[in-house]
Amino acid sequence: MTARARKKREAIPQGVVGRLPIYFRYLTELAQMGVDKVSSAQLGEALDFTAAQIRSDLSYFGSFGQQGYGYNVAELLQQVRQILGMSRKYSLVLVGAGNVGKAIGSYGWFRAEGFVIDAIFDIDPHLIGNIHGGCAIRHVDELPQYLANRPADIGVIATPKEAAQNICDLLVAGGVKGIWNFSPAHLDVPDDVIVENIHLTDSLLRLSFRLNERSQRSGD
Amino acid sequence: MTARARKKREAIPQGVVGRLPIYFRYLTELAQMGVDKVSSAQLGEALDFTAAQIRSDLSYFGSFGQQGYGYNVAELLQQVRQILGMSRKYSLVLVGAGNVGKAIGSYGWFRAEGFVIDAIFDIDPHLIGNIHGGCAIRHVDELPQYLANRPADIGVIATPKEAAQNICDLLVAGGVKGIWNFSPAHLDVPDDVIVENIHLTDSLLRLSFRLNERSQRSGD
Repeated sequence: MTARARKKREAIPQGVVGRLPIYFRYLTELAQMGVDKVSSAQLGEALDFTAAQIRSDLSYFGSFGQQGYGYNVAELLQQVRQILGMSRKYSLVLVGAGNVGKAIGSYGWFRAEGFVIDAIFDIDPHLIGNIHGGCAIRHVDELPQYLANRPADIGVIATPKEAAQNICDLLVAGGVKGIWNFSPAHLDVPDDVIVENIHLTDSLLRLSFRLNERSQRSGD
Repeated sequence: MTARARKKREAIPQGVVGRLPIYFRYLTELAQMGVDKVSSAQLGEALDFTAAQIRSDLSYFGSFGQQGYGYNVAELLQQVRQILGMSRKYSLVLVGAGNVGKAIGSYGWFRAEGFVIDAIFDIDPHLIGNIHGGCAIRHVDELPQYLANRPADIGVIATPKEAAQNICDLLVAGGVKGIWNFSPAHLDVPDDVIVENIHLTDSLLRLSFRLNERSQRSGD
């Protein structure tokens, strides 16, 4: 990466980063449909952004667009993948083999895109030894030894809230730098560890807030 | 609601709205532990916000804090619940009884907080008639008739991507105003319908972006 490219990349605002996966998903669809070119107006209409917003976002990672011509879908997709860190493989360990863990473990997209779940852990003796998504479920007591032998990039926490911080601490002690947290717990981690949360309840409450806000307004 | 309170409420910025569920979760914990009072400094430390941020956020929904005294946990929680639209019940229908749908259907918190899944739909003949979370799984062909008889507030879409827009259209035609979308599809809805997405892949890609960004920097 050149110094200029690196500078550009580090300057990407959070808002743009949040939209990159949306671009990634849509460009993937276009590529699968065999579409070669796409204009900022088309992207904007499909994604409910303005064309100006699209051009501004895409300017952060190179100048692929040509006036009156549009973007090359394959090049743009390749660039988005690289910025998102998808040009390498990630080793994942999943802790918690309940319904949420099972849903994560059986989601084929992850493996196809290089996010490979290498091991699954649980505490339920009835689950230990079962195979899920090609992985044998191991007892969580084996987690430290496992990570000592096979470092992982990302630890997925799909445990009850009460267990989450303890599991997080084990993952961090084992050298994991990325935590994907599906539990409703707020996790404390050292500065060099990144936590990405999927808080289902927060999402549902944002929806109820907006439904309630709307019905209050329409009742004016 | 007074005119002033309504004005205040409508003025709540998106950033604050996004943090309300975090306050809700933490205040619930404090209430369960029997804690009566909490200072903005304590809230800030627990939630990784500054005390000034906390005070600014909470100022949007009333003046509960007293200098040197802190906030009354029960009152603040009650107010947050009301703003989040949690002082009423919501009727949910869930479409898709795969792993993700099962995880949602068995999450007891939703029902306890007034988000009640009244019906589950799928297309798999092996699932129809099974009971999950107290609901019989019905064929998705019955969805329009069901909604005609029993209007629902929120439709939860946990289907494969290919089916999601069609299901969304059925839900909207049946009068559903809130869509909680777990599929990776980008859904088109009329202006009076609210979509809240849980995009697992977007979340994982935000994590890989940040891991990649960090390793690039530390490699400088």
